[in-house]
Amino acid sequence: MTGQPDLTNVSCAVPLGTHETVQMAHGGGGRLMRRLIEDLLLPSFRVDDGTGAHQRPPHDSAVLPNAGEPLALTTDSFVVNPLFFPGGDIGKLAVCGTVNDLAMAGATPRYLTCSLIIEEGLPLEVLRQVITSMRQTADHAEVRVVTGDTKVVDRGKGDGLFINTAGVGIVKPGLDVNPARVAPGDRIVLSGDIGRHGVAIMSVRESLEFEGAPDSDCAPLAGLVESIATLGLDLHCMRDLTRGGLAAALIEIAEDANVGIDLDETAIAVEAHVAGACELLGLDPLYVANEGRMIAIVPQAVADQTVTRMKGHEGAPAPVVIGEVTKSHAGDVEMYNAFGNRRLLDLFSGEQMPRIC
Amino acid sequence: MTGQPDLTNVSCAVPLGTHETVQMAHGGGGRLMRRLIEDLLLPSFRVDDGTGAHQRPPHDSAVLPNAGEPLALTTDSFVVNPLFFPGGDIGKLAVCGTVNDLAMAGATPRYLTCSLIIEEGLPLEVLRQVITSMRQTADHAEVRVVTGDTKVVDRGKGDGLFINTAGVGIVKPGLDVNPARVAPGDRIVLSGDIGRHGVAIMSVRESLEFEGAPDSDCAPLAGLVESIATLGLDLHCMRDLTRGGLAAALIEIAEDANVGIDLDETAIAVEAHVAGACELLGLDPLYVANEGRMIAIVPQAVADQTVTRMKGHEGAPAPVVIGEVTKSHAGDVEMYNAFGNRRLLDLFSGEQMPRIC
Repeated sequence: MTGQPDLTNVSCAVPLGTHETVQMAHGGGGRLMRRLIEDLLLPSFRVDDGTGAHQRPPHDSAVLPNAGEPLALTTDSFVVNPLFFPGGDIGKLAVCGTVNDLAMAGATPRYLTCSLIIEEGLPLEVLRQVITSMRQTADHAEVRVVTGDTKVVDRGKGDGLFINTAGVGIVKPGLDVNPARVAPGDRIVLSGDIGRHGVAIMSVRESLEFEGAPDSDCAPLAGLVESIATLGLDLHCMRDLTRGGLAAALIEIAEDANVGIDLDETAIAVEAHVAGACELLGLDPLYVANEGRMIAIVPQAVADQTVTRMKGHEGAPAPVVIGEVTKSHAGDVEMYNAFGNRRLLDLFSGEQMPRIC
Repeated sequence: MTGQPDLTNVSCAVPLGTHETVQMAHGGGGRLMRRLIEDLLLPSFRVDDGTGAHQRPPHDSAVLPNAGEPLALTTDSFVVNPLFFPGGDIGKLAVCGTVNDLAMAGATPRYLTCSLIIEEGLPLEVLRQVITSMRQTADHAEVRVVTGDTKVVDRGKGDGLFINTAGVGIVKPGLDVNPARVAPGDRIVLSGDIGRHGVAIMSVRESLEFEGAPDSDCAPLAGLVESIATLGLDLHCMRDLTRGGLAAALIEIAEDANVGIDLDETAIAVEAHVAGACELLGLDPLYVANEGRMIAIVPQAVADQTVTRMKGHEGAPAPVVIGEVTKSHAGDVEMYNAFGNRRLLDLFSGEQMPRIC
């Protein structure tokens, strides 16, 4: 493996220079781009793996060791607005989002790519903070950023910074997680309270200043998946709750697996400040984005064990069974409240919260 | 492997609907996003590999078969302006660019991801054309788009369409291509005339209308690499010529390998219309972007054979030795013209052609 990430052809020991903001030339393939990569990006992601490979010049691709296990591949672009929010930033989000997509496919996340689309004029200090955050989150999630790319677009043709991360992971042997395996009788385990990420973003965007505004739940979920995937539990499906929230994830699974889902509203926790903000903003927490919560769909017989295994892991502050899969009302998700009233959940066709991730 | 690409959680058989342009809601995780993916993206990239896997619901990641060979991983974001240009479009470019990065690392390209950042208001017909072009180019280059993502940003916060493709390839056994292997005495083989891509883009952007305006050279180079990599030739380094052109590629290699490079200007072909447009626009063709040309740096003993093998392959209309690697003037690229005059090439620090890829 190349110990040195390739962030598009590098070298030269000149400091980033006198510019304090990103210039078009930082994306032009010339000297300034080389400095940006050499002075900021490469040092941030370089790992000395003991092979000396990190001292070789970077190249067009990273080469990965490979023991022959099936691989998972995923990609995600992040356009969150604002770039910084309570509990995270676009860099942390870009690592967690892709790590979580791999984890949900039953894979152990290993390698990430990092591709930046920077708007001319972005303060270099902002870029530095975001890259630092990516590296810290990658270290925490035990993945390595091994290759990258940098583009700059003119002022007014972007929005500060967009980040794409693609990820490669190793599929855990014996696991077959897929919506197609979801079956009537299965239980739905939710890892914790919902809606924190969306509310954290909206609180900044709408300049809400209320006491106890929640932090985003943004977190890597690979450790959580490890806790339930390596113990012989027959996991039928997993899904992290991102855009569209808990509702969208369940509706998609119900449609894909052609099953019904019954939810118990009283089991679904929404923290008091999140609930308050949702009321203020006219949002339904069921549809509000999360970035560190997941559902696992498992046979009834192992539901309690799944809850127990999840407890205490990052992203699972309060795992709980919130519902079950039914043969009836196939394709539909229905929710019952404390009074036994039934509500049919449907996908929003409109846009509840744009650019949440 | 999942025969069905995951372009972010899909299903439902409703047509794309009455919208003719992309709405914010197409990126919101709701019904409209699902329709966009189901009606346009999935059918474009779906491949029936005979396993029936393409009929399973899509999931968060694609799972790839893996025979244990070392893998190459690369990423590239494309922000080219305009989206369509003579000889190509952003979709073709996004496939070729990433295929070529893998090929230059000595890898056979296999799988691509496709992540879209769409500006609200983009005509769906434009998106359809670009996706169709991606599929056609992927088929031609013998790679598969296996997973994807879609984000929509508000009007004025993007520029029509940005595309990220990450790529996974299988490193050819016995190959070790890396700038560190470049050594004095090596010959530099260029696959054809330079500057077509940059001039094709600029001709549209500057509304130049001259007779015989060149098409972009945009092309996948994996077949060309195959022609020289599988025949026991000791390839020291390969590089496709993109941003910064031939000059940037050579300067980077000279610096990374700490060698000098002598170029023979008379050996470097520039098509007449390209040369004319460069003169008109004040561009130096050495620095103008290409998207379907490469250099191979090989020991002197196999230089002629490399030229012969390249001939007739896509991206190599006129392969030729253009120079050699020297021990003297390490880190510098020098070019001699027909009169024996010497010129030192340096990276532009500024931006000759923004958003060329």
